[in-house]
Amino acid sequence: MPQTEVLHEKIATALRKLPIYTEPSGLYQPISYTLEQGGKRIRPLLTLISAGVFGGDPDKALPAATAIEIFHNFTLLHDDIIDQAPLRRGRETVYKKWNINTAILSGDTMFAVAYGELAKSDPELLPQLMKVFTKTAIEVCEGQQYDIDFEDSDQVSIEGYINMIRLKTAVLLAASLKIGALVAGASDEDCERIYHFGENLGIAFQLQDDLLDAFGDEELFGKKTGGDIAANKKTYLYLKALENADAATAHQLVEFYSLRNLNNEDKVARVLEIFTEMGVKNETEQAVLRYYNKAIGFLNDIRCSDEQKAPLLELADRMLNRKF
Amino acid sequence: MPQTEVLHEKIATALRKLPIYTEPSGLYQPISYTLEQGGKRIRPLLTLISAGVFGGDPDKALPAATAIEIFHNFTLLHDDIIDQAPLRRGRETVYKKWNINTAILSGDTMFAVAYGELAKSDPELLPQLMKVFTKTAIEVCEGQQYDIDFEDSDQVSIEGYINMIRLKTAVLLAASLKIGALVAGASDEDCERIYHFGENLGIAFQLQDDLLDAFGDEELFGKKTGGDIAANKKTYLYLKALENADAATAHQLVEFYSLRNLNNEDKVARVLEIFTEMGVKNETEQAVLRYYNKAIGFLNDIRCSDEQKAPLLELADRMLNRKF
Repeated sequence: MPQTEVLHEKIATALRKLPIYTEPSGLYQPISYTLEQGGKRIRPLLTLISAGVFGGDPDKALPAATAIEIFHNFTLLHDDIIDQAPLRRGRETVYKKWNINTAILSGDTMFAVAYGELAKSDPELLPQLMKVFTKTAIEVCEGQQYDIDFEDSDQVSIEGYINMIRLKTAVLLAASLKIGALVAGASDEDCERIYHFGENLGIAFQLQDDLLDAFGDEELFGKKTGGDIAANKKTYLYLKALENADAATAHQLVEFYSLRNLNNEDKVARVLEIFTEMGVKNETEQAVLRYYNKAIGFLNDIRCSDEQKAPLLELADRMLNRKF
Repeated sequence: MPQTEVLHEKIATALRKLPIYTEPSGLYQPISYTLEQGGKRIRPLLTLISAGVFGGDPDKALPAATAIEIFHNFTLLHDDIIDQAPLRRGRETVYKKWNINTAILSGDTMFAVAYGELAKSDPELLPQLMKVFTKTAIEVCEGQQYDIDFEDSDQVSIEGYINMIRLKTAVLLAASLKIGALVAGASDEDCERIYHFGENLGIAFQLQDDLLDAFGDEELFGKKTGGDIAANKKTYLYLKALENADAATAHQLVEFYSLRNLNNEDKVARVLEIFTEMGVKNETEQAVLRYYNKAIGFLNDIRCSDEQKAPLLELADRMLNRKF
C-alpha cells in the first residue's frame, strides 16, 4: 500500500474512533453523516506528510490532523447554509437534509470536538498548536465574510480577491502543513517556509478551480462547468476580464452579472466568449503557474533532502493536476 | 470598591483589550456589539472568585474567565437564531440587526477567539483547562439540542427536563467555578465539589427562572411574566402540573399548549390557574430549595475556611435572590 494510503487509513480510523456519542441523535447524526462522507482528506494528509518530511512520527501529528479535518467539515456545514448549497460531495447538505438550526448546532459541536482532538496532542506542543489553529480558524471566517461582502460589491480588486481566497482556502492548507512541521520539531524557519509553500499552493489551487469551473473538461472536473458564471461569482477570471475590457464590454459583463433569471446557458456561453476574447484563460493559467512556482520556491528552501521532500512535491502536483 | 466590582472591572478591561480587528467589519462589528453589551458577567466572575477562594491569583485565571464569557456570548448569538429571539438585554439580537449568516459567522469567530484567550493560560494548565472547557462546550450544545427536541415532543419527563437545563445552563456555571479552582491548584476533590456546587446552583437558578416567569413580580423580574406559557415552553411547572393533573385537566393543559394563535392573555391566565390548582408553585419552590441545599452541601465539603468560602455563598444567594 503506498504511503499516502496508509496515512489516509490512519485518518479514517481516527475519525471513526471519535468520542461522538449517540444522544441527542438530532445533534450527533448530522455529525456522523458529515464525517463519514469521506472526501479527499487533503488537509490532514498534508499534516501527516509534513510531519514525516521533517522526520517526525505521523502518529504524533494524528490528533492535530484529525482536528483539522473536523474543523474543515464544520466550516462546510455553516458555509452550506450561507451559500444555500443543496449538495455537497453528491449528497444533500446538512441544512437541506435536516434544517438550518441543526446545521448551526451540529457545526458548533464539531468545532468543539475539533479542539478536543487537538488537545490530545503532546502537552508541550499544545500552546503553539492552539495558536496556529485558532489564528487560522479566525482567518477562515474572515475569508468567508469577504466572500459574502464581495457578492454585493462592485469594487472588488484582484488583490482583494486573492486575499479572500488566501484566507478562505489557502491558510488552512498552509496551517495543516505547519502543524505537521511543528509536531516534528522543525526549525522556525522551516515552519514558515512550509506554511508559505501551502499558502501559495492553495492560492494556485483555487485559481485553477476558477479556471476549471469555466473552461474545464466536465468529465474530468466532475461537475458541470459555468456554475460560477451562472451564480455571478466574481472570480479571478471575471475580475481579469473586467480589467482588460473596454468600457462597452465591461458594461456588458457587469450587466450579465446583474441578471439572476436569464436563461443561464445563453448567459454562460456569452460570458465565456467575453472571457476568451479578453484572454483571461491564458492569464489565469499564468497566475496559477506563478503561485505554483512561488510555492515550489519555498519548498526548495526547506532544509531537507529532495528525497525527504518528494511526497510534498508529489502531493502538490496531484493537487494541481486534480488526480485526487 | 467591593471585591466583586474589582473583578468585574478586570473582566471588562480584558474584553476591551481583545484582539478583535476591524476588518472585515461585517464580521467584527457584531462581535463588538455583542461583547460591549455588558450584562452581569456571572460566569467569568465565578471563575475569578473561585480562583481567589482556593488561594490563587485571579489574574492568572483571567484568560480562562474571558474565554468563558466570550463562549457564553457566542452561544447566545446562535441560540437567538434558533429561538428566533428579537431582543437580548433590551437590544436587537445580532441576527435581527444584521442577518442569520452574520450571526452564524460572527458567532463562529467568537468561539475561536474564546479558545484563543483560553490558550493564554499557564501552558502547564492548558491541557486540563482545554478538557473541561471543551467537554462543557459540547454539553451546552447537547442541552440546546434537547431543548429543541422537547418543543415537538409530548414525552418530556421531569428527569429529562432537569438534565436539559443541567446541560444548557448549569454545566457552564459549574465549569466556570472548576476552571478557577484548577488555576488556583485546588485538589481534585475540591475541583469536583465546586463543580457540583455550581451544577446544582445552576439547576436551582433555572428552576427559579421558570417560577419567576410564571409567578414573578414583573417589576422585580424585569420582564413580562407568562412568556414561557405563551411560547408553549415545557418548563418544570408545566411538567409538574401534568404529573399532578387528572386526565381531564391534563388534556386541557395539553390543548392549551398546542395553541399558537389563541389570545395569549386568556391562555396565560387559564394555565396559571391550572398551575395554582395543581400546587406546582409550591412544588417548584421546594425543588429550587432542594437543589440549592444540595449545592450548599458541596460547598460545605470544600476544604477551606468559611471565611474563604464567603464570596461564593454570597454570590449564590445573590443569584437566587436575583439582586444581580
